[in-house]
Amino acid sequence: MSSIDPSAFFNVVDVTGVVANGLLGGAVARAYRFDAVGFAMLGIVSGLGGGVIRDVLLGNGFPVALTNPAYLSGALIASAAAYLLVLGGKWTGRLLILADLLAVGCWAATGTVKSLAVGLGPLACVLIGVLTAIGGGILRDVLVAKIPAVFGDGPLYATIALIGAIEMFVLARFDLPNWGMTASIVTCAGLGLLARRRG
Amino acid sequence: MSSIDPSAFFNVVDVTGVVANGLLGGAVARAYRFDAVGFAMLGIVSGLGGGVIRDVLLGNGFPVALTNPAYLSGALIASAAAYLLVLGGKWTGRLLILADLLAVGCWAATGTVKSLAVGLGPLACVLIGVLTAIGGGILRDVLVAKIPAVFGDGPLYATIALIGAIEMFVLARFDLPNWGMTASIVTCAGLGLLARRRG
Amino acid sequence: MSSIDPSAFFNVVDVTGVVANGLLGGAVARAYRFDAVGFAMLGIVSGLGGGVIRDVLLGNGFPVALTNPAYLSGALIASAAAYLLVLGGKWTGRLLILADLLAVGCWAATGTVKSLAVGLGPLACVLIGVLTAIGGGILRDVLVAKIPAVFGDGPLYATIALIGAIEMFVLARFDLPNWGMTASIVTCAGLGLLARRRG
Repeated sequence: MSSIDPSAFFNVVDVTGVVANGLLGGAVARAYRFDAVGFAMLGIVSGLGGGVIRDVLLGNGFPVALTNPAYLSGALIASAAAYLLVLGGKWTGRLLILADLLAVGCWAATGTVKSLAVGLGPLACVLIGVLTAIGGGILRDVLVAKIPAVFGDGPLYATIALIGAIEMFVLARFDLPNWGMTASIVTCAGLGLLARRRG
Repeated sequence: MSSIDPSAFFNVVDVTGVVANGLLGGAVARAYRFDAVGFAMLGIVSGLGGGVIRDVLLGNGFPVALTNPAYLSGALIASAAAYLLVLGGKWTGRLLILADLLAVGCWAATGTVKSLAVGLGPLACVLIGVLTAIGGGILRDVLVAKIPAVFGDGPLYATIALIGAIEMFVLARFDLPNWGMTASIVTCAGLGLLARRRG
Repeated sequence: MSSIDPSAFFNVVDVTGVVANGLLGGAVARAYRFDAVGFAMLGIVSGLGGGVIRDVLLGNGFPVALTNPAYLSGALIASAAAYLLVLGGKWTGRLLILADLLAVGCWAATGTVKSLAVGLGPLACVLIGVLTAIGGGILRDVLVAKIPAVFGDGPLYATIALIGAIEMFVLARFDLPNWGMTASIVTCAGLGLLARRRG
């Protein structure tokens, strides 16, 4: 994998996750009968909230959500799609779930590795990894005055994000960040799909 | 307009908006029968929340709400006034609405121009402009466990903030920030009053 | 008191407060029947939220909650204890209330003195002091979609935090930060216990 530019690789999975979560935010906006502004806000918060929390906590200059236009465009296009189209098909739902689970692993890993890069310890790295993965969903739920699903009904995402973040932490310590990324994405998606099938 | 110091001009409209929103936050605190602390917190959050979100996202050192005492004093005095006086008169209400609408334009414009100053792209500048204008109200609604009005019931403010932010972005690009400020304030107040009369 | 290292002194009371609030966050998680993830999140937010708000607003590089592992460990151990044990005894409850009240004074004072250290004015210092003391509880309540208790039902904590922050501000100005810390802790605990006995 050494021939792939890690940051390009990171960005592609990242933006896919932003789009998937923008669509999921839009689904919540539809459930509450919000207008276009509400769709855009929930899409942006769901898709970019975790990364913004991470960047604000890491004091990393601007959140990457603001500097790389792909993120904001992705969230807005997804919100617009959720607003204009009814995304209720069986296969659309399945694809969304898959993209969302891939994003959980990707975000847990990027959060962890970015925290490691600024010199934080293991506990803090893993916490930031988990917050990056589930922070957008928590913010989205708070904005519709709902108790965040991850606290009780859906432990799934937080637990698999925790596993992904730990994998990334260990592999990054062995100087294998791209393997950590891959492991986190594959594990989170695999465990997530397994849990859904069983649940 | 070149003889007016832009930052002095910005500050005056800004602080007026802080006071108006401090009063509006106080009105919410009254509706929920909060005590003095609740009035102060909702006044501060309503009046300064948008600007604090902007400054935290821009990583601009301290939020200006903390460094310029006029902001915090303005929010606190407004909270105290809302706590001590019953601001229910017809003309008081109209003045509050006008001051609030002027603030929407002012905050959309300052958020946009500050983002431009740190080198952000058009989408991010306009997003920060809109968040600066509506962020305080969103935080206030979240703090009373209410779905933010701007998401559904009151699209008005977000939509006019969007228009104001775009105007500011375009005019600032042509090196006319003071005209952008003025245009944003006039447009937001005009559209807001028009929409209220029609609605 | 000059022979005691102030930062060591600060840290001990600070971490005790984190543990007490982690336990209190866990009690809320139990009331809502959350799972282990919910306990951990509420424990972390209750114990560390105020300090993170302070550090983000002060733009102080990383929040100390991320760099000093004692904080995160303390919050996690407290969450785990709250999850595994039923902490319902009369004396456990009393100890928790005491530790929590000590933390209010400690956090109000540290928030104030850190704001003073970065050059903020009196109003901003006191506001940050109060926010540090009550911010974790506000965030915890927001996360369970409840109106923060400090806004109406429990003015107690905000009011005593305000008194502690003012004491700290005045004594720190006279170059007596350790006395300010002590005064704030003693006053907040004393007033809080008095108010509980009377209420």
